Amino acid sequence: MRHLLNILDLTTEEINELITTALDIEENPEKYSESCKGKILATLFFEPSTRTRLSFETAMLSLGGSVAGVSSASSSSASKGESVSDTVEVVSGYVNIIAMRHPKEGAPYVAKRHSLVPIVNAGDGGHYHPTQTLADLMTIYKKKGTFENLTIGLCGDLKYGRTVHSLIEAMSRYKGVKFCLISPEELSLPDFVKKEYIKDKGIVYEEVSSLEEAISSLDVLYMTRIQKERFLDEAEYERLKDSYVLNEDKMKSAKSDMIVLHPLPRVNEISVKVDEDDRACYFLQTRCGKLMRMALILKLLKEKNEPERADTRKMFVDPDKICKNPHCIVTSEQEIERSVYKDKNCITHCAYCDSVI
Amino acid sequence: MRHLLNILDLTTEEINELITTALDIEENPEKYSESCKGKILATLFFEPSTRTRLSFETAMLSLGGSVAGVSSASSSSASKGESVSDTVEVVSGYVNIIAMRHPKEGAPYVAKRHSLVPIVNAGDGGHYHPTQTLADLMTIYKKKGTFENLTIGLCGDLKYGRTVHSLIEAMSRYKGVKFCLISPEELSLPDFVKKEYIKDKGIVYEEVSSLEEAISSLDVLYMTRIQKERFLDEAEYERLKDSYVLNEDKMKSAKSDMIVLHPLPRVNEISVKVDEDDRACYFLQTRCGKLMRMALILKLLKEKNEPERADTRKMFVDPDKICKNPHCIVTSEQEIERSVYKDKNCITHCAYCDSVI
Amino acid sequence: MRHLLNILDLTTEEINELITTALDIEENPEKYSESCKGKILATLFFEPSTRTRLSFETAMLSLGGSVAGVSSASSSSASKGESVSDTVEVVSGYVNIIAMRHPKEGAPYVAKRHSLVPIVNAGDGGHYHPTQTLADLMTIYKKKGTFENLTIGLCGDLKYGRTVHSLIEAMSRYKGVKFCLISPEELSLPDFVKKEYIKDKGIVYEEVSSLEEAISSLDVLYMTRIQKERFLDEAEYERLKDSYVLNEDKMKSAKSDMIVLHPLPRVNEISVKVDEDDRACYFLQTRCGKLMRMALILKLLKEKNEPERADTRKMFVDPDKICKNPHCIVTSEQEIERSVYKDKNCITHCAYCDSVI
Repeated sequence: MRHLLNILDLTTEEINELITTALDIEENPEKYSESCKGKILATLFFEPSTRTRLSFETAMLSLGGSVAGVSSASSSSASKGESVSDTVEVVSGYVNIIAMRHPKEGAPYVAKRHSLVPIVNAGDGGHYHPTQTLADLMTIYKKKGTFENLTIGLCGDLKYGRTVHSLIEAMSRYKGVKFCLISPEELSLPDFVKKEYIKDKGIVYEEVSSLEEAISSLDVLYMTRIQKERFLDEAEYERLKDSYVLNEDKMKSAKSDMIVLHPLPRVNEISVKVDEDDRACYFLQTRCGKLMRMALILKLLKEKNEPERADTRKMFVDPDKICKNPHCIVTSEQEIERSVYKDKNCITHCAYCDSVI
Repeated sequence: MRHLLNILDLTTEEINELITTALDIEENPEKYSESCKGKILATLFFEPSTRTRLSFETAMLSLGGSVAGVSSASSSSASKGESVSDTVEVVSGYVNIIAMRHPKEGAPYVAKRHSLVPIVNAGDGGHYHPTQTLADLMTIYKKKGTFENLTIGLCGDLKYGRTVHSLIEAMSRYKGVKFCLISPEELSLPDFVKKEYIKDKGIVYEEVSSLEEAISSLDVLYMTRIQKERFLDEAEYERLKDSYVLNEDKMKSAKSDMIVLHPLPRVNEISVKVDEDDRACYFLQTRCGKLMRMALILKLLKEKNEPERADTRKMFVDPDKICKNPHCIVTSEQEIERSVYKDKNCITHCAYCDSVI
Repeated sequence: MRHLLNILDLTTEEINELITTALDIEENPEKYSESCKGKILATLFFEPSTRTRLSFETAMLSLGGSVAGVSSASSSSASKGESVSDTVEVVSGYVNIIAMRHPKEGAPYVAKRHSLVPIVNAGDGGHYHPTQTLADLMTIYKKKGTFENLTIGLCGDLKYGRTVHSLIEAMSRYKGVKFCLISPEELSLPDFVKKEYIKDKGIVYEEVSSLEEAISSLDVLYMTRIQKERFLDEAEYERLKDSYVLNEDKMKSAKSDMIVLHPLPRVNEISVKVDEDDRACYFLQTRCGKLMRMALILKLLKEKNEPERADTRKMFVDPDKICKNPHCIVTSEQEIERSVYKDKNCITHCAYCDSVI
C-alpha cells in the first residue's frame, strides 16, 4: 500500500504521471465521473481548513465517490483524548482512503502504521503539506511547460513556511533550477533545508532581503504570508513589511511571463489589484490542487495492493535520543515508540517530525 | 449567470414557475432523483443554522447531486482572516453552485462578484433570506391557492426580522393584499420598508399593538420571535410579551381557514399546543422550503449560461459616502470598492447592505 | 414505524436476523451497494463523537445512500434554544432515517413522538447506546459462535457505563450466561440493573474488586474506562487504578480463547501492547459496529410502514411525580408532558430517562 506523507514519497516520474492524469481529467471530466463509485474518503481534519478540505472532498465527489469526515478537533473524539493511532485504526476500517490534517508534526507517520487504507497528509503542523506542492507543480507545468531551467523566487516567511520547504525539495530534483530566497533575516530559510536541498546539490541560489531587488529575474514568484508575531521587534516588522507585499507597482518590474503563486489564504501580502493581472496564478493553482488530488486518489486506490516503497532511513530506538520538539506527535501520543534515524551527515533526527535531536 | 440574493431578484412569473416545479417534485420525486447527478453544492455557512443548511443539503441530495461544506466559522479558514471574495473565488472553482450564510450584511454581493457559479443567499445577517420567503410563498399558495386579496398579519419583531421584510416586499407585488403590522412600538416595521413597499404602492395596512385586536381579520398570520434583549426596559418586555404569544385561546378568535406561519426556530412565541391545530402550517412550511430549494437549484443550474439580469441601481463610488453600518461586509472585507447607489427619492444607500448613508 | 432507542426494543430473534444480514453484507458488500439509493440519513449529533458518527455515515454511504448532519451542538440551532421536538419535526421532513446523539437522557423518546421517520438512538447521555450493544453482540457471535453458556466479565466503571448496562440487559436473555462484575465499590453496578437483569432472572454472578482475581475464568472480558473524576478520594483512585488496567502480564492468566472488548475510546485502561494479542477484539468490534448499523438501517427502512411494537409500560401523568434527574430531557424541553410509569415492583420511573422518582 502506498501513502503520501511527504512530496519526496513520489518520484519525478510519478509526479509527471499525476500531472498527465490531472490534465486528462480537466479535459474529460465525464470519463472519470464514476471512477470511485462505491469508495469512501474520510477527511480527518483535526485543525480547520476550508479550502484544503473542500478540495479533497470535491475531488472525491467529482470521481463519483463519497465523503465522511470531521472538520475540527472540537467536533471529534480527539477532545476525549483518543490517540491518533486508535482513531485511524478504527476509521480506516470504515473507508477506502484517508486525508488527514493534524496540528502535531509527524501525526501522519503514526497514522500510516495503524491504517488499513492509504493515508494522505493534508498538513501536519509546520512539517509537510505534499498535496499543496502537487498543486504548485501542476500550475508551474501548465504555465511553463517544463520544470527545468526556471528561476524560482520564494518570498516572505521562508523559515516556517512548510509549503516553501516542500516546493524547494520537489524543484531541487530538476535540471537548471535556480532559487532566489527573498526574506527578512528573521525568517530566512532554515539551514537544514538550504544545506540538503540546495547547497549539497550544487544548485545556484541567491538570498536577498527585498522583493524589488529580485523580481525582474524570476520565472516563478512564490509568495507567502509574513506574520507580525514572528518578529521580536515590532518596529522591525513595520520597517520591513512593505518589502514583502506584492502590488501592481512591483509587478511592472517583473517578466511578462513570470507567474505568481501563493498557497493561500492571503491576508494582505498580495494586493487585490494584482488579481486581475494575467500573471496572477494563485486561483488557477487551487483548481490544479483539486485536479491533482483527484489524480492522487485514483493512483493510491489503484496501487492499494502494491507494496509500500521501502523506507531508506534506518530507524532505531535510543533511550538517550528523545525528541524535544513540543509540536511533535511523540509528545501527545500514548505509548509511542520513540524512533529516530541518522541522516547522511550522521545527525540524529526524530522519525516522526524530522527535527534534529 | 443568475444568482438569488434578494427575493426581488425573481419576478412573480419566476416565483410561479418555481412553485409549479416544486409541486411537481412533491408529486413525482423519482422524476427528479437524478437531475443533478454529478453536480456539487457547496454550503458555506459561516454562521450555524441546522435547519436551513440541512434543507439545502437534502434538497441537493434528493436531486441526485452531492454536497460539501462548512457549517460554522470556527471550522473554516474565516478564522484565519480569509476574505469572502477569496473564499468564494476558490470554492466556486470546485463546485457547481453555492449556498452561503454569512453574519455580515451584503456578503453575498461580494461573493457574486467573485464566483464562477450561482450564489444563493442563505441569510446575510439581518439583511435578506430569500429562500425562506420562497418557503413562505409556497405554503401560502398551497393553502390559499392564490396570493391575491389576502390579509397578512405580521406579528412580533418587525424591526429586525429579515424574513418579515422580504415577505412584505414579495407580497406587495400582488393585487388586493392588505397588511396588519402587529408589534410593540420598539419593534415596529422600519420606515424605509413601510414607505417603499406599502405606502408608495398604495397598499392598505394597519398597525396594532396586540395580537388579540387583529387576529380575527387575518388570512395569514406570520409569527416571529421577540427577543428580550431588544427591549431597553425589561418591565416593558414583561408587560408586553404575552400579547405576542400565540396560544390555543387566541386561535379561537381566528378564522377557520387562517394559516399560521413561522420561520422557526421558535422559542415560546407559539404554544406547543397550537401544533395540533390544522391551521398551524409552520412545519409544512419547512417542507415547502426544501421543495422550493430543489426547484431553485434546478433553475439556477439550467440558466447558468444565461446573462444576469441587469442591475437597475446605478452604482458609483463617492469618497464622502462611506457605509457606517457596523454589520456591513464593507467593514471587514479588504480593499473592497465602497460602492453606493441612489434610490428613487435620491437617498444614498450602501450597495452591499442597502443601509442609508 | 419501528425505532431503536433501547437494545430491548429488539427481540433475540431480531438480533439474530441482524447478525445474519451483517455477516452477509461482510461477505457480499456489492450486493448491498445500492440498497439505499435515493435515501438520506440525518446524523444529528448534539455531542461530538467521531467514531460513532462516522460508523453511521459510512454505513449509509456503503448502502448507496447519502448523509446530511450536524456534528456538534455549536454548529446547530440547538445553540439558539430550539427544542428537540421542533428540530426532529423539521429534519424528519427532509430525510428517511435519523441517527441521534444527545447529551440529555431520554431525548430520543421526545424525538420519536415528533418524527416522520425511524429514530436510532446513537447515545443519550448516560442512558442508552443500543447500536454499541449490537456491535458487542456481533463480535461475541463471530468469535464464540453462540451467546449461551458464556462467562462475561465486565471491568471498570460499571456504575455510569451505559454500554455495560445495555450489554447485561441483552445478554441476560440467553441461557447459561454468568456475569463477573469487576469494579471498585464506588463504581459498582447500580442496584436496579443488578436486581432486574441479574438477580430476578436467577443468573449466576460474582462481584470482585480486581481483574487479576477474575480473568482466568472469563470467556469475554468487557473493559471500560475508569475516570479519575468519579472518585471522591484521589488516594483511593491511585491505589486502585492499576487493578483495572489490562496489560500483557494479566493477559497471560486469561484463557487462550477469551476475547477482549472495549467500546472505545480508550485512554490507558488497555495497554497498547495488548493490541497485538489475537484475543484483542476491540478494533474488530468497531468493524462489526458498521456492519450492524448497515443491517439496522436496512431493517428500519424496510419496516417503516409496519406498526410500532406496543409499549408495555403504562404511561400516566402525575403532578406529584416530577423527574428530578438533572440530566433528563424533561429539564430542558419546553412544554413537555411529564409522563411516568410503574415497574413490576410498583416503583415509579420517568418515562424518558427511566430514573426512579
